[in-house]
Amino acid sequence: MTPNLVAGLEPPYYTAVFTSVRPDDPEGFAETDARMLEIVSGLPGFLGAEGARTPGGIGITVAYFRDLASLDAWRDHAEHQAAKRRGREQWYESYSVHIGKVERSYGFERG
Amino acid sequence: MTPNLVAGLEPPYYTAVFTSVRPDDPEGFAETDARMLEIVSGLPGFLGAEGARTPGGIGITVAYFRDLASLDAWRDHAEHQAAKRRGREQWYESYSVHIGKVERSYGFERG
Repeated sequence: MTPNLVAGLEPPYYTAVFTSVRPDDPEGFAETDARMLEIVSGLPGFLGAEGARTPGGIGITVAYFRDLASLDAWRDHAEHQAAKRRGREQWYESYSVHIGKVERSYGFERG
Repeated sequence: MTPNLVAGLEPPYYTAVFTSVRPDDPEGFAETDARMLEIVSGLPGFLGAEGARTPGGIGITVAYFRDLASLDAWRDHAEHQAAKRRGREQWYESYSVHIGKVERSYGFERG
């Protein structure tokens, strides 16, 4: 199955870029990760997310939001905050978050 | 070796998020990819880049630039434009580009 990209977004919108270093399959991670996707998918203003991870390398997740209010609602969600605490305590060696306002985007799809 | 993240960037700066779907190891790709990193690393205003790719899944590259002028210089670079044409003709099933202005960022590193 060919994976699908998030496409067709109309600027302006926001990207939350999350880059991280962690072990390959830490205990409890996959369940929490799935739960976080479930929660964020139900929030107003959430437009989609994509993730990639090179085995033994870094992981990058990009989440797309309509506006800062929806992005902040996700940042402040209680279960998300608990997951972030656990992430810092147990899973991640390091991570960075970059919140960007997108005014320009384009895409390509094979015809 | 623990991989390193691009860290310590001071807003404002720009993220160029490139998400893509392509075969695992297409002919000629690795050489061009390495050459592109060599070129962009020499451009004024380039602050770093990170890439991740899930085998059989999608790839995400994030490049960081000081301003739109440096980002546009990269977009318009002749060798980069030729690589993009080859990418559309030979390598990529699909891709998306999202250019964002970052006003907020933070990070975590295990102590």
